[in-house]
Amino acid sequence: MKTFQIIYGIHPLIEAIKEKKIIKKLFFQKEINIKIGANYKKLLYLSKQMNIPVHFVSKHRFDHDQLKYKNHQGVFALLSPIKTFNIKNLLPTFYKQHKNPLLLVLDRITDVKNFGSIIRTAACSGVHSIIIPNKSTARINSDSIKTSSGALFKIPICKENNIQTTIRYLIKSGLQIISATEKSDISWYKIDFSGPTAIILGNEENGISSKYLKLSSYQVKIPLSIQGISSLNVSVVCGILLYEVFRQRKIKNQIESAVKN
Amino acid sequence: MKTFQIIYGIHPLIEAIKEKKIIKKLFFQKEINIKIGANYKKLLYLSKQMNIPVHFVSKHRFDHDQLKYKNHQGVFALLSPIKTFNIKNLLPTFYKQHKNPLLLVLDRITDVKNFGSIIRTAACSGVHSIIIPNKSTARINSDSIKTSSGALFKIPICKENNIQTTIRYLIKSGLQIISATEKSDISWYKIDFSGPTAIILGNEENGISSKYLKLSSYQVKIPLSIQGISSLNVSVVCGILLYEVFRQRKIKNQIESAVKN
Repeated sequence: MKTFQIIYGIHPLIEAIKEKKIIKKLFFQKEINIKIGANYKKLLYLSKQMNIPVHFVSKHRFDHDQLKYKNHQGVFALLSPIKTFNIKNLLPTFYKQHKNPLLLVLDRITDVKNFGSIIRTAACSGVHSIIIPNKSTARINSDSIKTSSGALFKIPICKENNIQTTIRYLIKSGLQIISATEKSDISWYKIDFSGPTAIILGNEENGISSKYLKLSSYQVKIPLSIQGISSLNVSVVCGILLYEVFRQRKIKNQIESAVKN
Repeated sequence: MKTFQIIYGIHPLIEAIKEKKIIKKLFFQKEINIKIGANYKKLLYLSKQMNIPVHFVSKHRFDHDQLKYKNHQGVFALLSPIKTFNIKNLLPTFYKQHKNPLLLVLDRITDVKNFGSIIRTAACSGVHSIIIPNKSTARINSDSIKTSSGALFKIPICKENNIQTTIRYLIKSGLQIISATEKSDISWYKIDFSGPTAIILGNEENGISSKYLKLSSYQVKIPLSIQGISSLNVSVVCGILLYEVFRQRKIKNQIESAVKN
């Protein structure tokens, strides 16, 4: 039997439809006045356009385990499970498409809010794919779809059995490996991010596994100005690093096109 | 009657003691084996050192409204309310101390997780003070102390009745005002952050009030590489902006000291 996934919240549902994810059924809470919100109307319009069956149901249908106490905004849907990939299949296609690969490796990020926020930032900043382990990681489910604001539909996620082997493969494929850790003396902006790069972010409590740190081209830190706070939140670190990559690559492109003209 | 504030969680409590906040009583959950965790031992040691009365109480004492369903880790305390300031009193002291002021203005940040994360990032990146309005803002309470990892004790918070008047005061006092908004064509890294600066971050839904945008020296955006996601999370935007300030000021300092030598 095929198991469907529950997703909820207006924005993730709109994104799911736009990204042509297979939605089996869509449920609106009867009590909600759809005419009031422009986004409700948009969701209803898109559903009709894509021939998705829409059901108006009473509040108690939202008492489901996966919806209770959640900010579901009165809408949920049944969705085919999100497809995951293997980086060995994806990376060659990135090179063929003349992309300058930027990958993110998440080493046991377990908090679903962090996971969702990282996916959202990665999609926004131009990361081509996110690599996660098969185990000990936040799951790809209704909560992470919601906390990512639907960005989980926008960026391919690779699930790998062995992250160490995967990192070795990335190195062989020409990527530099950058690990974010407080136990480094190199500030993040000293790294040249213009070439193919994979950035590793580590577990909220324990950081990055030492076996991955050893494989890294560089370990970098985001310095802290004060004592007594052990580190920044990992999703904030993610934003700082990825937008430094963005900044460097943008400036390099501008210089290159100025030289050409 | 003086009302005390409840704070919970090991790390915020350790920070509160270290920062010499007035803790009336500290409560440990009886069922917890304190000998196991190094942080529990540290908290107990610090409490004894500071003559804070410690009580070992049963689980049901944690059924309090402010603790239920919270990650309190089996410890809470009663604390004197956190003192807030007015920027008109603080800014002159920053100048007297030869600081190059970096301030953060939060225009109706209402999500407590965002609020906490922003305070943590601000403290880590060297912001001198955070300005919030009196109303329509996440509150300074046990939850924001916890989500800030105790950083709320590390950085002075200014509560202002009128943010517009406050911004005008900052301009008169020589600060440039930078607003973060998607409705701009200027990328964040194009701004020279080396001088006195106040950065405004806006409400999660509606962004920054137009009256504050009009007063800004520059409106800047963090560009998004993809369609369909309206914006980055505000706490991530905060990290990207504040660490760009950090980067620019660091490099400027290095150049200046290289020129001197």
